[in-house]
Amino acid sequence: MTKNVAVVGATGAVGTEMLRCLETRDFPVGELHLLASAASAGKAVRFKGQDVTLKALEGFDFAGVDIALLAVDTDIALECAARAMEAGATVIDNSSAFRMRDDIPLVVPEVNGALLSDHPRLIANPNCVAAIMVMALAPLHRVARIERVHAASYQAASGAGLPAMRELEESTRAYLNGQKFEPKVLPHPYAFNFFSHNTPIDPDTGYNGEETKVMRETRKIMDLPDLRISITCVRVPVLRAHGIAMSVEFDQVVTPETAREVLAHAPGVRLVDDAVANRFPMPVEASGIEDVLVGRIRRDVSDPSGKTLSLFVCGDQLLKGAALNAVQIAEQLA
Amino acid sequence: MTKNVAVVGATGAVGTEMLRCLETRDFPVGELHLLASAASAGKAVRFKGQDVTLKALEGFDFAGVDIALLAVDTDIALECAARAMEAGATVIDNSSAFRMRDDIPLVVPEVNGALLSDHPRLIANPNCVAAIMVMALAPLHRVARIERVHAASYQAASGAGLPAMRELEESTRAYLNGQKFEPKVLPHPYAFNFFSHNTPIDPDTGYNGEETKVMRETRKIMDLPDLRISITCVRVPVLRAHGIAMSVEFDQVVTPETAREVLAHAPGVRLVDDAVANRFPMPVEASGIEDVLVGRIRRDVSDPSGKTLSLFVCGDQLLKGAALNAVQIAEQLA
Repeated sequence: MTKNVAVVGATGAVGTEMLRCLETRDFPVGELHLLASAASAGKAVRFKGQDVTLKALEGFDFAGVDIALLAVDTDIALECAARAMEAGATVIDNSSAFRMRDDIPLVVPEVNGALLSDHPRLIANPNCVAAIMVMALAPLHRVARIERVHAASYQAASGAGLPAMRELEESTRAYLNGQKFEPKVLPHPYAFNFFSHNTPIDPDTGYNGEETKVMRETRKIMDLPDLRISITCVRVPVLRAHGIAMSVEFDQVVTPETAREVLAHAPGVRLVDDAVANRFPMPVEASGIEDVLVGRIRRDVSDPSGKTLSLFVCGDQLLKGAALNAVQIAEQLA
Repeated sequence: MTKNVAVVGATGAVGTEMLRCLETRDFPVGELHLLASAASAGKAVRFKGQDVTLKALEGFDFAGVDIALLAVDTDIALECAARAMEAGATVIDNSSAFRMRDDIPLVVPEVNGALLSDHPRLIANPNCVAAIMVMALAPLHRVARIERVHAASYQAASGAGLPAMRELEESTRAYLNGQKFEPKVLPHPYAFNFFSHNTPIDPDTGYNGEETKVMRETRKIMDLPDLRISITCVRVPVLRAHGIAMSVEFDQVVTPETAREVLAHAPGVRLVDDAVANRFPMPVEASGIEDVLVGRIRRDVSDPSGKTLSLFVCGDQLLKGAALNAVQIAEQLA
């Protein structure tokens, strides 16, 4: 049975990938509504070989829409989700507006997809780093309870949208040509530079907004409210795949061999852990694919008990980190 | 009193910076011998407004040289150090050839410069990540004993020399122009990509050569043979400054305020920790300067005891990570 789908924010980095995921995964789309700002309304976007005309979100009537995929900022998401639900649609929202609300499931289908069997009317799609991290953490947690996580991220431009991706390319081109470039999208130069994630710092904790989201959302998705977790989030000059170096402490010894075995069979995960060839997860291989790459699995030598493993994860920020996960949620609801 | 100085590997990334440090810090250079491969011999290099002619290292007689600064690969360093010492020179070697030898001091002057008062004839200059890390760790360790360190690095191209810096620029230019580029210096594409450090993986531990060096050298420099430390080393597409995200566990509570106070007064360290302006250590500000930048200092929330701090360090790989540290050693010997 087909579903009438609305993609809200269809011209953005995530919205564009949502469309592509609906296409490549052959989601049973009935009517398709592509919504964007008034400025984009009237333009055409290709979907399955046909032109679909963009409509303005403002004033759009969600009546008849089964599933609304939201890829817009928090303030627009808040307003739009209410409208869509009132009209009878089920909403999958990629913003952070609803993620931490107790009454709203925050879902990565491979991890806590069971929550979808209640047919919630509003589902939150997680932060990109959290979604990619839990793809590696959850399968391991089924083997031994995770007690603590130390993480550092290597985050791509796409997390700040298409304008940031363009700014990375343009500022890099300017650098290589010896030209000055004034950053407009991000607060710091991005060409051949990295910087602490530019979300505001919580004056009480010293963690920035991105880090706080990752820590809270990881706990919620994994249903581990007391998980001890710390992350440092850094933007690095890559386009669309995030990396995360993690040290994971379990309540018992987990050998690297066991972890490899478990992750090799985990859905949505691809083990890339070739020590001989020195080949491990990296953006050029993670970009544009659905699987999250996991490797560098080794015993963390700073824990003599053998209960801590180090590993490195890399996943497409726009796919598993956003659009793909949302479409997977839609599939499981359908 | 002037010293006769030889710089071995004077055309490389580190050798070039050694010359610049001798110049800018006004080291009392008497005779200056710039040694390189036979292919470079005869070419001229500027030093304090004068042309100095490069000589071939092969066959060079170190007689009369007081201090030999070595910026060459391990195999050449082994042979050259022996020759220079036999001729009466004191050797400061930037390779990893001698760093872990019990009879040879591994020195970061601000940390264990006292070892130089014995006037050793051969001093090892540390790995770049270790040198930058200990600049932040050592001042804190004077306040409270460091028990454990978790780290993840963001390493610049310069660590693999000038050819890698050129490859980063050329491959990025090719990418932006839509052209193919075959990496020649590094084993993986570098344009808008990051990858696990390409030193061989130890099959017993799973750590790569770079990580093993950083962990061992940090223990040796800090005289903490039992320090529990784990690092993941990653090359990111920046040119010449390394970043390191660290979580540091002490034997007692150390507040972020205390850490800031200590680091603000530590020689060679600059505190860049402006939460309001969201400005923290980053390569565009760390590159080309002598100080190591430290910031993002906060209580690690994964340790409820308050004994663990998170922080982020960024330092010029070619300066404090290599050339500057070597010249500082020479200054202290002189």
